Amino acid sequence: MSPQVYPRFCDVVAAATRLDGIVTHTPLVEHAILNEVSAGRVFLKLETLQKTGSFKFRGAFNRIAQTAPEHRHVGVVTYSSGNHAQAVAAAAQLVNMPSLILMPADAAANKINGTRAFGAEIRFYERDQNDREVLARHLALERGATVVPPYDDPSVIAGQGTVALEVLDQLSHIGATADVMLVPCSGGGLLAGSAIVMREKSPATTIFSVEPDGFDDTAQSLAAGRRIQVKAPGHSICDALLVRQPGKLTFNINQSLVTGGITVSDAEVMEAIRFAFRHLKLVVEPGGAVGLAAVLARKMNYAGRIVVVICTGGNVDSKVFCQAITQ
Amino acid sequence: MSPQVYPRFCDVVAAATRLDGIVTHTPLVEHAILNEVSAGRVFLKLETLQKTGSFKFRGAFNRIAQTAPEHRHVGVVTYSSGNHAQAVAAAAQLVNMPSLILMPADAAANKINGTRAFGAEIRFYERDQNDREVLARHLALERGATVVPPYDDPSVIAGQGTVALEVLDQLSHIGATADVMLVPCSGGGLLAGSAIVMREKSPATTIFSVEPDGFDDTAQSLAAGRRIQVKAPGHSICDALLVRQPGKLTFNINQSLVTGGITVSDAEVMEAIRFAFRHLKLVVEPGGAVGLAAVLARKMNYAGRIVVVICTGGNVDSKVFCQAITQ
Repeated sequence: MSPQVYPRFCDVVAAATRLDGIVTHTPLVEHAILNEVSAGRVFLKLETLQKTGSFKFRGAFNRIAQTAPEHRHVGVVTYSSGNHAQAVAAAAQLVNMPSLILMPADAAANKINGTRAFGAEIRFYERDQNDREVLARHLALERGATVVPPYDDPSVIAGQGTVALEVLDQLSHIGATADVMLVPCSGGGLLAGSAIVMREKSPATTIFSVEPDGFDDTAQSLAAGRRIQVKAPGHSICDALLVRQPGKLTFNINQSLVTGGITVSDAEVMEAIRFAFRHLKLVVEPGGAVGLAAVLARKMNYAGRIVVVICTGGNVDSKVFCQAITQ
Repeated sequence: MSPQVYPRFCDVVAAATRLDGIVTHTPLVEHAILNEVSAGRVFLKLETLQKTGSFKFRGAFNRIAQTAPEHRHVGVVTYSSGNHAQAVAAAAQLVNMPSLILMPADAAANKINGTRAFGAEIRFYERDQNDREVLARHLALERGATVVPPYDDPSVIAGQGTVALEVLDQLSHIGATADVMLVPCSGGGLLAGSAIVMREKSPATTIFSVEPDGFDDTAQSLAAGRRIQVKAPGHSICDALLVRQPGKLTFNINQSLVTGGITVSDAEVMEAIRFAFRHLKLVVEPGGAVGLAAVLARKMNYAGRIVVVICTGGNVDSKVFCQAITQ
């Protein structure tokens, strides 16, 4: 599939059938203390409990499972700081495809180890020096392998959208509808997939991207109405969200379906991790906690509203985690 | 109710209706890596996500909600190292009853703070010097208040049994039945409540208590056929399970319904906490992790079997947690 093909709602439904029995149907939980803090009702979608520890497995598997059997032996190539890497490695392993993953040299150690554990071959690149997409295409060409992009791909976007499908199903069981959905955002794949689903099934829900300060390319792009690349983003503890520019395909979708972008600081993210540990008994990684941080830091008025927050991942280094919970 | 009254299956069903809409219907999760380790299918019942961070809220609320309105102003008294304390404080607060909690002077700081946050009055006692039950009865008599025992009470046992009712309902949705159930055990209330439910609805399930080394009074008592008090238990990190003798009522029930007792070491518990952090993205306290430890340490042959493990609580001190995950 070429990136020009827009994923549609029916692609998400098809992805859901493809993923049925393969992905974990993750819980949607509500917690009294979060309702109190927000003066609304907050539901957390726990993709932290997803296979490989993040929602990324959905998109990766949906893309990889569509590889024709006769092409599987050549394998897949991708580039990722960690969550998509582990997801592709695990999905490829499930269908017996070799995987080669390009990871930044400064990727979190737990994510490198996790990726290796799924049988992937890993090559490192320098975050600031190499164009990882060009590198990946080059390596894929050499092997005749398929590139599985982390977000700018219709099948990946459709796979991520199954998170929102599950949320709607879970909300309907308790007779609730979402007023607001907060979606952690790097390249915008989960955001786009979720937005496609909500537009179709819950058009009254307003959807917001949540990004770390400095890496708010999607927020800026949504405000400007065009793809903006952030120049000197500085540093962020959200290692999963260090993207400087929205995807082409994802932004085209998000531009028309997403209400706006929220940003959170490192301190707010650390507080969210600590809160999740102490009150929710959940392990959430920095990038996975930005939505929760947006609730706790009262980035908007949640009073009387039903808010869905996607906790996207839990692959956090033990050192970072201890720093957050003991501060 | 006097401790001589045996709770029956219908009491658990009544408790479930009383708790409906009050307790959290906690998730039952399965994880590929645990199935791999066990060569069976392992389901974790996440009472870590229960209100107040442990299953204890079920029994406490079931008991307290039965207080006649005209007696509520005098309040409740209880004694607990922490989880039952928080549960009683929270349940009392919900029905506007004052609560007085006796806690051991060495109780975990996070549990003392948690109890206080629910508006309870706290008095400390020395674990080895004072008979906490006598103290509690004395204080209750002074105030005309009701004692809510942590386990040796039919209503408390019936409330805890609702965990097993939920598990059976969740298993039935996926067409599974439990071969084995592993239940963390202090005084034996959750064990007794669960055993009553399983005997009625899933009699083929074998049920095991899980206790820390040294505090294996239930295992010893089950083996001996009479209540045994452990003499010099030493130390354990499982602060929620430092009971030296099974309850009278709970043991009478467990003696006829429970298959046997398993014990785990501190090191095995720490490994389970680390595993839950790294692979399951869950925060589990030492006493809540003994069942998981029994799976990981292969205390029995789980091959080809469906194993339900109750993760009873997540109220762990951040220092202890960091020690576990960085080791």
